[in-house]
Amino acid sequence: SSLTMGRAMGLAGLLLGLVVLPAVLVSTSLRHGAPRTEAEPEPSGWELAADAVPEDSLWPLPQWVRTYPRQLQLAPSRFQLVHGAGSSAGPGCGLLQDAFRRYYEYMFGHSRRWTRGRRPLAARTEPELFQLQVVIEAGDPGCDGYPHLTSSEAYHLTVTEPVAILKASEVWGALRGLETFSQLVHEDDYGSFLINESEINDFPRFAHRGILLDTSRHYLPLKSILTNLDAMAFNKFNVLHWHIVDDQSFPYQSIYFPELSDKGAYSSNLIYTPTDVRMVIEYARLRGIRVIPEFDTPGHTQSWGKGQKDLLTPCYNGGQPTGSFGPVNPVWNTTYDFMTMLFKEISSVFPDEFIHLGGDEVDFTCWKSNPEVKEFMKKQGFGTDYAKLESYYVQNILDIVSSYSKGQMVWQEVFDHKAQLRPDTVVQVWMSNNYAHELSSVTGAGLTAVLSAPWYLDYISYGQDWKKYYSVEPLNFPGSEEQKKLLIGGEACLWGEFVDATNLTPRLWPRASAVGERLWSSSNVTNLQDAYKRLTNHRCRML
Amino acid sequence: SSLTMGRAMGLAGLLLGLVVLPAVLVSTSLRHGAPRTEAEPEPSGWELAADAVPEDSLWPLPQWVRTYPRQLQLAPSRFQLVHGAGSSAGPGCGLLQDAFRRYYEYMFGHSRRWTRGRRPLAARTEPELFQLQVVIEAGDPGCDGYPHLTSSEAYHLTVTEPVAILKASEVWGALRGLETFSQLVHEDDYGSFLINESEINDFPRFAHRGILLDTSRHYLPLKSILTNLDAMAFNKFNVLHWHIVDDQSFPYQSIYFPELSDKGAYSSNLIYTPTDVRMVIEYARLRGIRVIPEFDTPGHTQSWGKGQKDLLTPCYNGGQPTGSFGPVNPVWNTTYDFMTMLFKEISSVFPDEFIHLGGDEVDFTCWKSNPEVKEFMKKQGFGTDYAKLESYYVQNILDIVSSYSKGQMVWQEVFDHKAQLRPDTVVQVWMSNNYAHELSSVTGAGLTAVLSAPWYLDYISYGQDWKKYYSVEPLNFPGSEEQKKLLIGGEACLWGEFVDATNLTPRLWPRASAVGERLWSSSNVTNLQDAYKRLTNHRCRML
Repeated sequence: SSLTMGRAMGLAGLLLGLVVLPAVLVSTSLRHGAPRTEAEPEPSGWELAADAVPEDSLWPLPQWVRTYPRQLQLAPSRFQLVHGAGSSAGPGCGLLQDAFRRYYEYMFGHSRRWTRGRRPLAARTEPELFQLQVVIEAGDPGCDGYPHLTSSEAYHLTVTEPVAILKASEVWGALRGLETFSQLVHEDDYGSFLINESEINDFPRFAHRGILLDTSRHYLPLKSILTNLDAMAFNKFNVLHWHIVDDQSFPYQSIYFPELSDKGAYSSNLIYTPTDVRMVIEYARLRGIRVIPEFDTPGHTQSWGKGQKDLLTPCYNGGQPTGSFGPVNPVWNTTYDFMTMLFKEISSVFPDEFIHLGGDEVDFTCWKSNPEVKEFMKKQGFGTDYAKLESYYVQNILDIVSSYSKGQMVWQEVFDHKAQLRPDTVVQVWMSNNYAHELSSVTGAGLTAVLSAPWYLDYISYGQDWKKYYSVEPLNFPGSEEQKKLLIGGEACLWGEFVDATNLTPRLWPRASAVGERLWSSSNVTNLQDAYKRLTNHRCRML
Repeated sequence: SSLTMGRAMGLAGLLLGLVVLPAVLVSTSLRHGAPRTEAEPEPSGWELAADAVPEDSLWPLPQWVRTYPRQLQLAPSRFQLVHGAGSSAGPGCGLLQDAFRRYYEYMFGHSRRWTRGRRPLAARTEPELFQLQVVIEAGDPGCDGYPHLTSSEAYHLTVTEPVAILKASEVWGALRGLETFSQLVHEDDYGSFLINESEINDFPRFAHRGILLDTSRHYLPLKSILTNLDAMAFNKFNVLHWHIVDDQSFPYQSIYFPELSDKGAYSSNLIYTPTDVRMVIEYARLRGIRVIPEFDTPGHTQSWGKGQKDLLTPCYNGGQPTGSFGPVNPVWNTTYDFMTMLFKEISSVFPDEFIHLGGDEVDFTCWKSNPEVKEFMKKQGFGTDYAKLESYYVQNILDIVSSYSKGQMVWQEVFDHKAQLRPDTVVQVWMSNNYAHELSSVTGAGLTAVLSAPWYLDYISYGQDWKKYYSVEPLNFPGSEEQKKLLIGGEACLWGEFVDATNLTPRLWPRASAVGERLWSSSNVTNLQDAYKRLTNHRCRML
């Protein structure tokens, strides 16, 4: 019925003979304190239209949107996504070519009506939109590169007869703009494709907008990961935090250490081969998504011990080894030799400039039981402070990874236990208890932070919990302007204890969409009723 | 690894030349106080086998199981499900023919290895099982009938070389036995199909074992409903409680009153046509599942009002109608004329001997505001007790439905508000607050009860909540032996506020399996570790 009203608006506009109708402005904030742009008053008789504004279909809401009642028609058999004049990208830009094909399919592919023949436009009176011209403005469009933390995702979109123009500095912004353009196109009850004349100026509020998937507690087939990357692109997420291994299984097939997955995976077919990993990385790249792998140590490593002898700490009881093992053994040189090789491989397999090194939830019980560890503690002068031993270990790993020119992400304990961190280290805040204080401490120490604490989406509950995720204001922590700038984004985490291919998609989406809008849109986009309406439409489109 | 051990057992048994090996007994209880059958002591050296008993694959656990270590091989190209000598059913029994085909596919269809050619048996030493012979012992097997509350689902299964025999009084028991037989067959790592020699005597603890699906809050496509019926059969559920209409939508396409769905459904294609309804009923029948439709009145009827003028109560404010409507109007004769026609149709469309009439959560506010209703209250001498008006309405509906020779199910409020109920009325207890007391009251009044209160599966929470559902003991309420017999079963309810085709299956299963075993198996089957092991295998098989 909202589409019906949209159509009525278009016809009415034409009958009135208006050339430029007053704008209906929904998102009104420009970031960095720009003044709120006021909507011009609407003429009477247009009140109904408030129920059917084109912005109802946008998610996450762009930073600045102006739409006009005048609608344009798109003919699937004629409409083209093309490189615009002056663009540094051309037909040789595989990334954009692929995106053109993909978004064409999203917009028109679900409707089979017109494919029965090159049907002419419906007998409608709207003018036609013939093209979307994409212009990349930077000298090097970056078609073959990988997205970075500092990549520009800004874009500017104008939709007017007879062509729409999408301008972006880099291809990453073009990808975001293509998603927005596709969200503006809708099909009416008679199978006509329509778009309102519009102007959109958009950019993300936060640079790091991630989803954590856990492929250790349950293996996720490649297809599930790729489907999730599609959903991420629909919500303008740009980081896949791949928690690839953990205590339960080691599905990453290492080139240097194949026994890790041979013995540590759930089974010989529940692994990610080098080809699988490359596929995930490339599929993500084509959607402007970074892949940050997490190889969590020294805890969460039980599965590592199966394929790598003498890596984990033997636990003792009454002076005797129990046969059980604890965290990675921090006292042997062989540990660091192994880690040097493994992280050399990881640094080369994963192109992203960051690696996540974990460092969370280290249980000291086993270390405390081991005579060799105790001896080492004494020698190092750590007393009985095992957090110091943990920091000693982490320090070594950080140094190894630094030597491969990789940036580092770590869980908050690494900061809490006072490891010496490089200033560009990204600290992921996950403990729900007083996370604002933790953000304050991390950024107060001059370190970069990513927030996950309020967004553990594996914790399910009855009802519309998306509102809880949506209502988080990440910058609501005590700190200076400088500190606020150090919070570079957030991640929705879907730990895998109760998640596998059978429930991943309906459990994560559209709940994670709430986090997506919080991290992309302006801080004043907080109206739950408005969000509900748009999210409902967005969910339907994603389905 | 559990399969490997099973195979090792079989080979060892053969090498030892034992003809009948000592039984491994898992489920040992016979209901109604029969003495516990003790397992014979196992010879030493067999302890390992305890990790790999064939019962690990059974869900719900049969009442009495004896399995032997000796394994038999099944050759998919030769193995047959057939009617046994002396059976009253034969090739003319469509229900069993259909079941034979279905269970053959479940057992062998997922393995494509053997279909590449009529491969001979693997070079194994196990003897072959050639047939499962199904014998229906009642004079009339009931192939074309519908299952009833009093149908027999008991069966007796013996698996020995060279044929297995499944005996049941009625086809419904045969369906349950086929499910159990299929759960005993497993495929080893080399693609051989094996079954242990076994004897099983089984019957349900409770006669009414239901799943409630709600197709009003969200429409469920036919395919989702049918998939759910398959899952129900895997868990020996025998009642689909179809909460087909409610406030939000009226998807049931009525023959007499087509406007109800024309105007009350979410859209013209989100309906259940008479053909759809017949399909659900027949698909359920073939799996021994009753379909009890619920047409809930007088509350929960907002969607009814869209297609049926003058059915709902107009609400008033300050002496004026507000334009809003409340529950069904209980004072007009036209209401009962309409209900007479509608329930006549429903009684004929749905073959089950029961109809669920709802009667829950009636809000009196609107009735209280309506002058005509108030006048009627006065005339009837109800004072200001609107529960009496509710009972007056429900009484009329009960009388109408009785005249069509249908039994009645109602939600507990109908009992609580003191309607005069026929002794065969089934009262569904759903309020979680002190449900044991309610069961006591309902059965104390001589009425039959079905329990749902602890099994509202739409209330999700983090973790293994199946244990909570599993640990319920339905008969744990104060009352005599006679009263306990009046609790005929239970239902797991999946209300549809947050459920649609995208999440129905992973949300309901295997959580509902916990309820399935509680309602089928003996009351002493309560070990959570044992259940966990079996449920894990069962889930894998269902997938």
